[in-house]
Amino acid sequence: MLDQADTTTSVVDLMQDIGVRARAAARQLALAPTATKNAALEAMADAILGAQPAILAANAADLEQANAAQMAPALIDRLTLDAGRIAAMAEGLRVVAALPDPVGARIDAWTRPNGIEIERVRTPLGVIGVIYESRPNVTADAGALCLKSGNAVILRGGSDSSRSSAAIHAALVAGLVKSGLPEDAIQIVPSTDRAAVGEMLKGLGGNLDVIVPRGGRSLVARVQDEARVPVFAHLEGLCHVYVDRAADLAMAVDLVVNSKMRRTGICGAAETLLVDRKVAATHLLPILEALRFAGCEIRATEEVRERYPTAEPASAADFDTEYLDAIISVALVDGVEGAIAHIEAHSSHHTEAIVTEDIRVADAFFAGIDSAILLHNASTQFADGGEFGMGAEIGIATGKMHARGPVGVEQLTSFNYRVRGSGQMRP
Amino acid sequence: MLDQADTTTSVVDLMQDIGVRARAAARQLALAPTATKNAALEAMADAILGAQPAILAANAADLEQANAAQMAPALIDRLTLDAGRIAAMAEGLRVVAALPDPVGARIDAWTRPNGIEIERVRTPLGVIGVIYESRPNVTADAGALCLKSGNAVILRGGSDSSRSSAAIHAALVAGLVKSGLPEDAIQIVPSTDRAAVGEMLKGLGGNLDVIVPRGGRSLVARVQDEARVPVFAHLEGLCHVYVDRAADLAMAVDLVVNSKMRRTGICGAAETLLVDRKVAATHLLPILEALRFAGCEIRATEEVRERYPTAEPASAADFDTEYLDAIISVALVDGVEGAIAHIEAHSSHHTEAIVTEDIRVADAFFAGIDSAILLHNASTQFADGGEFGMGAEIGIATGKMHARGPVGVEQLTSFNYRVRGSGQMRP
Repeated sequence: MLDQADTTTSVVDLMQDIGVRARAAARQLALAPTATKNAALEAMADAILGAQPAILAANAADLEQANAAQMAPALIDRLTLDAGRIAAMAEGLRVVAALPDPVGARIDAWTRPNGIEIERVRTPLGVIGVIYESRPNVTADAGALCLKSGNAVILRGGSDSSRSSAAIHAALVAGLVKSGLPEDAIQIVPSTDRAAVGEMLKGLGGNLDVIVPRGGRSLVARVQDEARVPVFAHLEGLCHVYVDRAADLAMAVDLVVNSKMRRTGICGAAETLLVDRKVAATHLLPILEALRFAGCEIRATEEVRERYPTAEPASAADFDTEYLDAIISVALVDGVEGAIAHIEAHSSHHTEAIVTEDIRVADAFFAGIDSAILLHNASTQFADGGEFGMGAEIGIATGKMHARGPVGVEQLTSFNYRVRGSGQMRP
Repeated sequence: MLDQADTTTSVVDLMQDIGVRARAAARQLALAPTATKNAALEAMADAILGAQPAILAANAADLEQANAAQMAPALIDRLTLDAGRIAAMAEGLRVVAALPDPVGARIDAWTRPNGIEIERVRTPLGVIGVIYESRPNVTADAGALCLKSGNAVILRGGSDSSRSSAAIHAALVAGLVKSGLPEDAIQIVPSTDRAAVGEMLKGLGGNLDVIVPRGGRSLVARVQDEARVPVFAHLEGLCHVYVDRAADLAMAVDLVVNSKMRRTGICGAAETLLVDRKVAATHLLPILEALRFAGCEIRATEEVRERYPTAEPASAADFDTEYLDAIISVALVDGVEGAIAHIEAHSSHHTEAIVTEDIRVADAFFAGIDSAILLHNASTQFADGGEFGMGAEIGIATGKMHARGPVGVEQLTSFNYRVRGSGQMRP
């Protein structure tokens, strides 16, 4: 492992070498049969279970350092591994093994009048960089999804979890070797020097095709601002629930509480509640009381507070804030048009939901809002690759290019055209 | 029209304003019904035919300036409009009107065990920037494709063709107005200041979602190097034809000559011929003689020249050169593995073809090469959106993100997820 005191030059050389080796591995992986990739994933799962003592010892060393540095309890929790979390990691690898192989899948096919047959077929993207923070399980999750989609991956974990990630990575490499796949298919950056991240953002001389940041807002913002290669990410999930005049009140109460409170720290958690002014008199009080009963702090406009004085006053900034906590901002709007206008002005284009029994109003909501995920009469907390049936996700993207919404194995592929003829010439 | 002497500040302000207006128009266009967009395209075609005198007058002024500046004949030809080319432009608009509307099309749909129904639906990308050079017809082609796909477009044509493009643009705007669509749906940058391009490359403050450069290598290279937004483009089309030992000789002769010589100036024209060493004795002479007879200069390795001394010697650089002319580089390789190795080392990942009667060899070629378009027993000159049945294309992309190969109306869309439930909460 390189020391942080190493010179920047050596980090540049190290990262360039990692990129060259990843590209070479990617060429081999693109040709790897499905059975070989699945065997590797199963072998990786076995190796992780077999390496449990080593992984826990490495994690204990990371935790000792984190405690000495008085790391925040939430971060300590993310860093902590135990037998259950290690078993879940291994099980996650087997879930990815069981997914259909996207590589080589036919997306579309047609025949032209001149007889040439055109197929559009999924191909790997190439080399994926994953930059993450304290959660060591990302090492296994990201490694597995990239392998299944035929891509080489360069993992750059946080320095807090470097020993844990290295121990997990060793188990992944053991699985690769056992099934005859190149070791360089899953590489972990052995340097905690921040310059290594800078090199990845520059694209490793053309040997990095896309970067997926997994972590807090400041990491994602830095990657989005500085990366010279495409990025699959969301900066924040400022998700809205709109309760329409035609909403079923009992359903609205349930969906608002579930969207906000099931888990407050995930990107699909609701942050703002919009209620149709037409039903403020009937719907506002039951919904807000249910939220308060569930332990949610309510920050509302003056108009809402006139009906529900228990609420705190909301500032303008509240409607642009992703709390990731048991807090919700509340405002009244004039029907679905008012909801669309508010959401288009404040949303992070991640996930928005409408509660209504009027299908035409739901259609207007779907047509008028340009977010990755739109829901009608369902909780925003379904914004998740697993809930979508993708098996697993490497993250959720809010960009409009290539991948949008949950990023699973299919979204980690490109495609090309394969044309078969019998000697056709172009006239 | 702004003068080139205007200050940079005013160009910045101008471009920012164009971006803001494009974003506002994009919001309206995303909701525009198919019939309205098609009516606009038909009205634009009528307006172009009606404006023929004005367009020809503007073109005459551009040509006068170009001749005075002693512009190269090939560029003069691209710049020149006549009644036939104007009619073809109008017909192109009607072809785009007749294409299926990609916006709102369902890409996929499935139901989860909990009963939520998930749809993946095409949505517009938003605002597209098109930067082009001397061909004024790009104004109409690009404007039509962006409109059909529900996107606003900012057109920045070359200064050589600025009067012609402005006259065509006026006809497009007349069509928009007639059908009630926002004028700002298709804007043309009224400044020939190069700083305007720089502003587009910076992304117009988040109001430009993708850039499509249409022009020569230096324009594309600048856009690819400097753009801070995604780019759909190909730097060059260094296309290969590989003649395998199992090739039908007559077919190989025809396909090589068509791939190279049908039109030498397009990106799908072949630049390098690779022949299996196993059939050098039988196949090389007939193919090279046919090329020579068709007027093609042959630059070959020493090994090829021993069999065909008429060929010029090829330098190493020849195998990395996109001639766009009646010149071809020729080498022998050891079977399909040799062809794959050569192509992966030298290709621009645009289009490659194999000629063989052995389907397993063709499959190996398809699996081993990562180019946008791969052909078996068909001419590389089919690398074209029209030939693929897309109706029209705005260009061909060699990147692996989002759009790859011909970029038609579908490739100018994004997608989102639309989830319909009946009150489902996430457990």
